[in-house]
This record gives sequence, C-alpha cells and structure tokens, in this order.
Amino acid sequence: MKLLITGGAGFVGARLARAILQKGRLDGQAIAELHIADMFAPPADLAADQRVRVHTGPLLNQAALFASGFDAVFHLASAVSGECELDFDLGLHSNLDSTRLLLDGLRRAGNAPRLVFASSVAVFGPDASNPLPDLVSDHTLPSPQTSYGMHKLVCEHLIADYTRKGFVDGRSARLMTVTVRPGKPNGAASSFFSGIIREPLAGVETTCPVDAGVTHPVSSPSNTVQGLITVFEASQQAMGGRLALNLPGLNVSVGEMLQALEEVAGPAVRKRVRFERDERIAGIVANWARGASADRAHALGLKPDVSFKAIIEQYIEDCRSPAYPAGALQGMS
Amino acid sequence: MKLLITGGAGFVGARLARAILQKGRLDGQAIAELHIADMFAPPADLAADQRVRVHTGPLLNQAALFASGFDAVFHLASAVSGECELDFDLGLHSNLDSTRLLLDGLRRAGNAPRLVFASSVAVFGPDASNPLPDLVSDHTLPSPQTSYGMHKLVCEHLIADYTRKGFVDGRSARLMTVTVRPGKPNGAASSFFSGIIREPLAGVETTCPVDAGVTHPVSSPSNTVQGLITVFEASQQAMGGRLALNLPGLNVSVGEMLQALEEVAGPAVRKRVRFERDERIAGIVANWARGASADRAHALGLKPDVSFKAIIEQYIEDCRSPAYPAGALQGMS
Repeated sequence: MKLLITGGAGFVGARLARAILQKGRLDGQAIAELHIADMFAPPADLAADQRVRVHTGPLLNQAALFASGFDAVFHLASAVSGECELDFDLGLHSNLDSTRLLLDGLRRAGNAPRLVFASSVAVFGPDASNPLPDLVSDHTLPSPQTSYGMHKLVCEHLIADYTRKGFVDGRSARLMTVTVRPGKPNGAASSFFSGIIREPLAGVETTCPVDAGVTHPVSSPSNTVQGLITVFEASQQAMGGRLALNLPGLNVSVGEMLQALEEVAGPAVRKRVRFERDERIAGIVANWARGASADRAHALGLKPDVSFKAIIEQYIEDCRSPAYPAGALQGMS
Repeated sequence: MKLLITGGAGFVGARLARAILQKGRLDGQAIAELHIADMFAPPADLAADQRVRVHTGPLLNQAALFASGFDAVFHLASAVSGECELDFDLGLHSNLDSTRLLLDGLRRAGNAPRLVFASSVAVFGPDASNPLPDLVSDHTLPSPQTSYGMHKLVCEHLIADYTRKGFVDGRSARLMTVTVRPGKPNGAASSFFSGIIREPLAGVETTCPVDAGVTHPVSSPSNTVQGLITVFEASQQAMGGRLALNLPGLNVSVGEMLQALEEVAGPAVRKRVRFERDERIAGIVANWARGASADRAHALGLKPDVSFKAIIEQYIEDCRSPAYPAGALQGMS
C-alpha cells in the first residue's frame, strides 16, 4: 500500500504515522510507502524509517505528488483556528484550495483511493435562531462561527461529493480538541486546553483565558489516532451512507481538568495556573460545543477516554519517551 | 445605488432586474446603475434601459468588475443540476470558483455591500442514517445528493463567513423549483416541472420522467422574485443571525399539477403529457425534498403561491406579453 499523510509531521499526524508504521498494515494491506507531506520536516524517527518519503513545503506545490497514485490518504494538514481568524486568505488557501488540489489530484490518478479527512468539532456553532444543544451529535445542524470551522465543513461536503461521484472513497472524522499537546503553544484558540496542563507540569506559570465552568469535548492523542484508523478501516456500509461523523470526546470542564491535574501531580503544580480572561479567546470558545456525543463512532467500536486523569497520565508517560521535549516534567516534585 | 445581478440575463434574473427597474429603488435607495453579468446577453428591454450596463461572458473573467465597488449584489448565476452531474469541472468552476472570485472582489472593494445569494432547496437530500422529513425546514440538516446542491450549500457557508468577517452583508435564499419557465427545456433535472405545463399549452406532446405521486415544493417566477427582494431588504436583525433560509414553496404532486392544467386549459391539453420514466432524472428527483416549510421567510411576510392553478394562470398571462416566445399558447383551444 502506498499511503499519504498530509500534515504527517504535525503532532497528531506524526503520531498517526508512527502507529501505522508500527502496525505495519492498514485494512489488511502492508505499508510499502508512507509519504508525508507537510510544511515542516517530520521527526527524525519517522524520516529514518525506510518506508517513509518526505515532501516538505506548502501543499499547494504538491499537485504532481497528489496525482501520483495513492492507495490511501489521511488528510490532516490545516491552518488552525487562531491563524485563520487572523489571516483570512491564509485560511482559504491552506484549508480550501489545498483540499481541492488534493482531491483533484486523487481524482486524476483514477483509482478512487480511500481518504480520511480530519474534520473538527469546530463545524458546530450557535446562531440566534438555533442555539447549540448541550451535546452536539451526528445530527446537529453545523453552523460554524470561525473560518476554520467553515473550511472543515466545506471540505466535508466536497469530499462527500467526490465520493458520491466515485473519485475517492472518502469519510470525515470530526476530531474533538486533542489534549495534552507537547511543546509550545500554537495558534489554535484551543491551545490553552493543553497549556494549562503542560506548562505547570514543566514548572512554568501559565494563565487560563476562560472561566473554570467552560466545558468542552476533548480526546487524548492516542484515542484520536485510534479513531482515525478505525474510520479508515470501516467499510462504506458501516459508514451508513453518512460520510462525516463525530469522534468520541470526553466532556469535561476546565475546573475538572485542573482538579485532575491536582490529583495526578499535586496542589503545587495546580497552583501554577492563574485565571486571566482573554476576551478574544473567550469569545471564540463561547461559540464552541460544550459537549459532544458520537453515536456513529460508538457503533464502529470507538469510545472516549475513560477520564481526564487518564489523559494526563498518558501525557506524563509520553514525556518519558525520548521523542518528547526534555524538561517537560521538571515541575513535578 | 450601483447594483449587480449575476445571471441577470437568465429567466429569474431578468425578471428580477425588470422588477427592480420598475420599482426604481431597493431598500429606499434609487437604482443609478444596474450591472448584469451573465454568459449571455440580456433581453432587449433590459439592455435598452439607460441604467443597465451589460457584461457578457464567464463570471471568471469579471474580477475587475466585481472589485469595482457595488452597493448591492444579487448572485444568481449558476450552472444547473443536470449540467453539474454531467460535467463535474464545469460545476466547480461555474458555481464555486466564480462565487469565490465575486466574494473576494467585493471584499477588495471594502464597502461590505449587501448580497443576496440564490441558493436552492437542492441543498437537502436524504442519507441512510438521516431520511428526509416530509417537509424540509430551516432547521433540517442539509445533505446534498447532487454536485449542484453541494455547491449551493458550500456557497451559503462561504457567504456566512465573509459576512461574519464584515466583508459583505450576505444572506442566502433557498429557491424552491421555479415553474412555469418559458422557452426550451434546460439542463436542470427539474426542467420537466415546467415542461409538463409549457409544452402541452404550446400544442406540443411531452413526457413526464417521474411518477404522478412525486411531490415537490414549487414557486412561481413572480413569487420567487418577491422572495429575493424581500430577503434583500430585510435587516440583519430580521434575519435573526441565520443567513440561509428557505423561500416559501407550494407543496404539490405531479398529479395535482396535471389536474390543475386540465382545470385551466381542458382535458385535450392535459392529454399531451405521457408518463415515460427516465431513470436518470427519476433517480435525481428521488433524492429531492418532497415538500418544504419556510417559517423564517413567513416571519419576513413571504407566502407561497396560493395554488398551482394560480401559477399556471400567471404563466398564461405572461405568455401574452411581447417578451414571451410566440406560439407559447397555440395549443389552447
């Protein structure tokens, strides 16, 4: 199998690539080549794998690659929500035009490859005549309130139509907010959902830009990767004719996240988080889902993480691997 | 006011242009210039109006025009459903790329003009896990089953996002199937909804490609034009934060349409329609809404046509005007 992962050098993408290389096969077929297309070079362990081919640079330069004939694609590359709010054109080019280029390349190759698109819970948003329910479901009417959410929704519909026409065998998995992310804060408005755990564990004081009562559906990196692989391996029949579904999320409040942090790492670590409201971030988050359900993903056997404590423990274990930044746990006693 | 109507040479567009020129103003402002951008030249009566400026050719060539600074836009130009199913690229270019070019031109001009987009009831479609309700409402989850319907839905979301960012003051009115259209059948899969009335009135034998029990929401041309103008003149507040709404439709079966034809024009006319199933058309129509509601349009004061008889009578009256093709009623005794 010749596989492409766009955004395969990113946090979720690299983790997905590692999981697939380790498994060695996807849907019963051995991985012969794994192509990673990303703005940045992938981590060294991935680049060193004999099966990996690296294509660094903007996706908009990869027309020839996309048309080269893949058996399977995970399309994860994306400008994130905060970036798209700050630079409207960047968002359109990175998220809509790149996806069109990818889809048209796959179509030109003519072999209707299976494609999993990483969509997002950000497709949901409230509007005056249609407030968000407590849990956004597979049947909730999407009404995105960020450009990023709009891009994801538009790509879902493009992929559904390319699939209906037989150009690809596509499906869209709506990722919940993935936490805990290692490294530095990124441009995503959701960055603090990782920062309020990661920074205090590293001994760094940090601020939380929203109130403790804010709730949100989150997922650990490993549970998210499992979701993407399961959706890839599902038959068209199992998808039930609907090509976009919610991945499972753990519905949790910011206060509960910090409580779990205290239980895992102690009160001194917890105290490194100070509440300091950021109106720009809080305004974006106020339009996000407060919780999510995922009936169709459950039917595929997927489940949310068991607890936020378990998510933090997964992060701490990850930090002990050499691939994670040094000093990530130097704030723990 | 400097106004643009894309698709302003088409059936609905030309009628909209006439109605606005006759009214002389829109939302209280006098029409100084009405620009018509269309693949084809507009009817002679429009071209002759001192206020009209004609721009013939593909919308994709009109970047400079779009950025020239309009106060108001009706965006009606579109490749139709049958065309888009037959030529996938034509659909993408005519419906998605043209709309992006228009929106980016308006954005570059920087004055956030009011924009009404002619969307369609074709945004709705059934899928295996979500069958269509008897009436598609403003809150029904769109799941388009044609490329045309996908394009319309994607443009709704693009316009909502350009509006949220303050680049335009947009809204999307979902047109029901407009009937009775004069002239020749077009590439739309819905063309027969006009053909089964128009052809027998002209003395021409015709076929109906779907069963008599098929129901669908329809609207007369004048009621559709009234809907577009009312949505244009509605305040953002009256739109209630939701920018896409259903225009009112009269929910009617093919059998009831033919019954109304017989009542208006007699049994000999009715008998010129023979049922001859066309699997391609019937397959597309089977995925269309069987009926529609339009609560938000009603709140703006809009109503469906009173009866299908009244729609036929409107057509017959129109046929007596010089703008309509000669011989359109030569089949009536």
